[in-house]
Amino acid sequence: MLNVGVIGVGYWGPNIIRNFDACNETNMVVASDLKPERLSFIRKKHPAIRTTTDFNDIINDANIDAVAICTPVFTHYDLAKKALEAGKHVFLEKPMTSTSAQAEELVELAARKKRTLMLDHTFIYTGAVQMIKKFVEAGDLGDIYYFDSVRINLGLFQHDVNVIWDLAPHDISIMDHLLQLKPESVVATGADHVGKGLEDVAYMTVYYPNNVIAHIHANWLSPVKIRQTLIAGTKKMIVWDDNIPNEKIKVYDTGITVNRTKDEIYDTLIQYRTGDMWAPKVPLTEALSLEVNHFADCIKSGKTPVTDGVAGLNVVRILEASEKSIKARGKEIKL
Amino acid sequence: MLNVGVIGVGYWGPNIIRNFDACNETNMVVASDLKPERLSFIRKKHPAIRTTTDFNDIINDANIDAVAICTPVFTHYDLAKKALEAGKHVFLEKPMTSTSAQAEELVELAARKKRTLMLDHTFIYTGAVQMIKKFVEAGDLGDIYYFDSVRINLGLFQHDVNVIWDLAPHDISIMDHLLQLKPESVVATGADHVGKGLEDVAYMTVYYPNNVIAHIHANWLSPVKIRQTLIAGTKKMIVWDDNIPNEKIKVYDTGITVNRTKDEIYDTLIQYRTGDMWAPKVPLTEALSLEVNHFADCIKSGKTPVTDGVAGLNVVRILEASEKSIKARGKEIKL
Amino acid sequence: MLNVGVIGVGYWGPNIIRNFDACNETNMVVASDLKPERLSFIRKKHPAIRTTTDFNDIINDANIDAVAICTPVFTHYDLAKKALEAGKHVFLEKPMTSTSAQAEELVELAARKKRTLMLDHTFIYTGAVQMIKKFVEAGDLGDIYYFDSVRINLGLFQHDVNVIWDLAPHDISIMDHLLQLKPESVVATGADHVGKGLEDVAYMTVYYPNNVIAHIHANWLSPVKIRQTLIAGTKKMIVWDDNIPNEKIKVYDTGITVNRTKDEIYDTLIQYRTGDMWAPKVPLTEALSLEVNHFADCIKSGKTPVTDGVAGLNVVRILEASEKSIKARGKEIKL
Amino acid sequence: MLNVGVIGVGYWGPNIIRNFDACNETNMVVASDLKPERLSFIRKKHPAIRTTTDFNDIINDANIDAVAICTPVFTHYDLAKKALEAGKHVFLEKPMTSTSAQAEELVELAARKKRTLMLDHTFIYTGAVQMIKKFVEAGDLGDIYYFDSVRINLGLFQHDVNVIWDLAPHDISIMDHLLQLKPESVVATGADHVGKGLEDVAYMTVYYPNNVIAHIHANWLSPVKIRQTLIAGTKKMIVWDDNIPNEKIKVYDTGITVNRTKDEIYDTLIQYRTGDMWAPKVPLTEALSLEVNHFADCIKSGKTPVTDGVAGLNVVRILEASEKSIKARGKEIKL
Repeated sequence: MLNVGVIGVGYWGPNIIRNFDACNETNMVVASDLKPERLSFIRKKHPAIRTTTDFNDIINDANIDAVAICTPVFTHYDLAKKALEAGKHVFLEKPMTSTSAQAEELVELAARKKRTLMLDHTFIYTGAVQMIKKFVEAGDLGDIYYFDSVRINLGLFQHDVNVIWDLAPHDISIMDHLLQLKPESVVATGADHVGKGLEDVAYMTVYYPNNVIAHIHANWLSPVKIRQTLIAGTKKMIVWDDNIPNEKIKVYDTGITVNRTKDEIYDTLIQYRTGDMWAPKVPLTEALSLEVNHFADCIKSGKTPVTDGVAGLNVVRILEASEKSIKARGKEIKL
Repeated sequence: MLNVGVIGVGYWGPNIIRNFDACNETNMVVASDLKPERLSFIRKKHPAIRTTTDFNDIINDANIDAVAICTPVFTHYDLAKKALEAGKHVFLEKPMTSTSAQAEELVELAARKKRTLMLDHTFIYTGAVQMIKKFVEAGDLGDIYYFDSVRINLGLFQHDVNVIWDLAPHDISIMDHLLQLKPESVVATGADHVGKGLEDVAYMTVYYPNNVIAHIHANWLSPVKIRQTLIAGTKKMIVWDDNIPNEKIKVYDTGITVNRTKDEIYDTLIQYRTGDMWAPKVPLTEALSLEVNHFADCIKSGKTPVTDGVAGLNVVRILEASEKSIKARGKEIKL
Repeated sequence: MLNVGVIGVGYWGPNIIRNFDACNETNMVVASDLKPERLSFIRKKHPAIRTTTDFNDIINDANIDAVAICTPVFTHYDLAKKALEAGKHVFLEKPMTSTSAQAEELVELAARKKRTLMLDHTFIYTGAVQMIKKFVEAGDLGDIYYFDSVRINLGLFQHDVNVIWDLAPHDISIMDHLLQLKPESVVATGADHVGKGLEDVAYMTVYYPNNVIAHIHANWLSPVKIRQTLIAGTKKMIVWDDNIPNEKIKVYDTGITVNRTKDEIYDTLIQYRTGDMWAPKVPLTEALSLEVNHFADCIKSGKTPVTDGVAGLNVVRILEASEKSIKARGKEIKL
Repeated sequence: MLNVGVIGVGYWGPNIIRNFDACNETNMVVASDLKPERLSFIRKKHPAIRTTTDFNDIINDANIDAVAICTPVFTHYDLAKKALEAGKHVFLEKPMTSTSAQAEELVELAARKKRTLMLDHTFIYTGAVQMIKKFVEAGDLGDIYYFDSVRINLGLFQHDVNVIWDLAPHDISIMDHLLQLKPESVVATGADHVGKGLEDVAYMTVYYPNNVIAHIHANWLSPVKIRQTLIAGTKKMIVWDDNIPNEKIKVYDTGITVNRTKDEIYDTLIQYRTGDMWAPKVPLTEALSLEVNHFADCIKSGKTPVTDGVAGLNVVRILEASEKSIKARGKEIKL
């Protein structure tokens, strides 16, 4: 049994605690937060869990094997570094760090200390993404044309990061996981309507090799909530609408066939194919539950987590580049 | 009664003919096309209309007052120039020309010759856009935050222009009409999956003054057809889904209120407002019918058309800039 | 080539004419209507078609092989009888007649005169119904549980028949075609809100053998237009939404398994199965075009039409029973 | 503070306990169930609540003021009777009893004992129904034409009651609450596909005075979950789709105007009106929380609950009649 401590029990931390508590491989021991009222909230729900306002009580506790860090982004680097240095395995909230240099350092540190560093890229563990991944890996989609994701709603405006750092880590981690391609560069645009230098509407394009292109629309100022991702390939195309309780994933037997003729100047003939649509049943297991078990399993077996430090670093690199690009009005930032 | 000739009766021309034929102010006299089979198609539907394979028969016909040009873009400049020089009023298909220099020249020529030059920006005459325009002008939306439009479907790939030149003129003309702002610059990205140098998936951001931002997603490789435009302001937000037969326009009483405190470092307080939604009944009159009547009325009265040559030029400038930007991987192109 | 005359060119007649005109096997010769303005409308669209205000000109014309009757229901019997007696093949609008006795007489008359009598049950020839029929016949649905259809919208109120006679013939003909079962009885309810004795909201249940049950909701007073049919079987279940342009038909791998135990008093165990959904591509051919060709083919080959007089009679019997039931507040009417 | 005991903590009971526990006016004291594992489930969530397998421990406890009964229907009468006779106020799960005679007896008993008897018709306390009720009472809909409700999904089959007794109490209680009319009679049809005499698909029509008609479709064998209610009046029409998270209620400015002329034989002229649609924001308060507070308030103040014993009796009368009708294949049962 792995003894687990959780640092930060604001919005997301309680879910982490609930799942570590329910996991057969882990023993949820202690939680810390700067706000006492959050700790009493946790004690009420989980009377057996110790609480503390000092995270060092967790990091210095020799009895603790693993630490989950669910605090604001700007604290991730310091806390994860301390935890790794203290020999703990680390389960880290996304986005991983504020800079890619910090993320790289954590990746190296974890390797050096031989500790498991896993990123909480929750969506990767959902039934929907796992199913799409299976289709992509099996080649069902053919060669990928593009990945297009829209994640928009009203609020919640963050105080310290723009809408890309807030919402796009979901899409970036999914796209990195599905495409398994090294991105070349980022072009991002956006606007700040509140005047604090934090964009509330933003668009980013990521260029990949082989004409694969990805685009993400993140927006805190939308009257409607949209969670829609298109993934199109030469053979099939997927529409994933995460707002729909059933039929989240629709696979379209749709595409084009390009016939090149001798005289290519005017005669590239494009034929269109629209066929059946198929909505496979998506399993409803809670992603976080799978994830927490995977973390425990990786620690025990020494396996590399699916969402390891490198996956976290990949996301931060794109976020960082997008921020540079957005401030330079769409300047292409190489990765 | 205005005598009208139509040059080009491919996909769209027959609709133009039908509407000039039905209009009480116009007399649909003659149609030309290079393909005889298109002309026999027209003669079958409209036995009273003369046809010719030589557009000069129309331009040189002293009896013809106005010419509608419904040919491929690359021919617009030459044909419109000849028609204006021959003293005809011109009803011109969109996009206006292949370059902004050509468009400027046509605007000047029309002014010099005191002829009406009107662009067929059809959407401007739909009940939906006219209703949104009314809301925007009345200040119902407050200050505009952004304009976001998605126009995607499978095909039809064009041989000579990319997906932006093909689909985005609709969105650009609508956005120009609604915002009435001078755009500052364009950032565009995209990818060509066929290998002819014509992007089939493209994204463009247009920067406007006062933090107003616009974005268009145009795509020939989508498994689903989406025609959705969001227009958000400080007071209200609109979702216009042109695929829905009824309830195309939804007006949301949704928004944010920003309360600034003395200590602004951490304390900009943002309050969210979500209220009723309202779907006003949108009139179903055919846009082209209104448009053709407006053209006749402008010729008679000397009024400037709502979609005049300058409106056409505005669209071409943005298209031209988007093409430069897309080829330079998102480089900001000033307008 | 079959020479065809059409009697009645109100709302639907022009479609019939257009399709007989386009059919390679038929020669659309003459149309009649009591209203001269309808005839001039036809002449404008089809200058080659003769017109007359006297239907006898069609029936007595020895040159005419087949007559399509598109007049109000109460005239069907007389006109069809005259046409059959004159040796014409008859293409008859639905519902077939005002009474089942009349329908029976026409069936017999057609048999005696060896003429083709075909009902215009258009939906039977749509891609959607043909696809569902294929699934049912192949046993893909297993044993049918029920057929449930909702056909509601605002108006158009009819002057001479209630909402069941107006809207339900579609559903009844579809259900008769798909189930191929002899109905046992009908229970119908409804209300007349205008006060002319014609129900504008109505519900009808049709009992079939083997616990198969069918239900139709027909309504002229609905704020929304719904065209939804559920067909559930032991193996699969179909939802057909005719308002959706694509994905009209959705096939659900959904159902129950009943496990009976020895002690059946309390222990019938029901297991639920929800699986994938599949939306096969539905061909978009115009139903009426197929239908008109089928009519010509039946006349030529002597084959019995899919929607023959007996199919028409089956519909009228259920309509007639539903009217009796509705007037008797749901009294079961045996068929 | 009112001391409350809950009998029956299966599926719904835990929600009742949670809400009585959270209510400021009530003191959640004791829960009973025949199954010890349900009691340990409750103790884990609410360590302060006493539990017992014998409901008499609650009824005989002089300290208990009110009893909530959340057991299967067939036990309601006995338990509620004992509780009322013991001087307890009773909060009773729906449907109230298995027969209307039992329901009448409970109404009388509660009156005689001067105790509050309230039915848990939860939907009446939802934001959606309260908003519709406000519109109806304000006369916004005009005179009601009809109430039409569809409540269908896959399972859960009940062992002791048919689908009407299982699902329709929701719709019947809502319709009784909104219409405030005395029903005249019921016609119901249905089918049992499992063979235990319990219909799994059922339809019922309720006749009200003034041509108001109501219809409910309840179904355990549907591949899709539908929760849709139409309420149409002379002035406005409402579509309530309870599956939609936002925009549950849509109010349509749709209807007909009947113009009667002197010669009424053929000339009743019906004009159609389709106008704007309006989706008012529906408050999201938990219905059960409002309900439990209302119960406490009624006990304290002596007010009659909105969903009193008579409301419960009204529902049972219609259920009972529908069962008689369904067994007699649609025979009209007077109320």
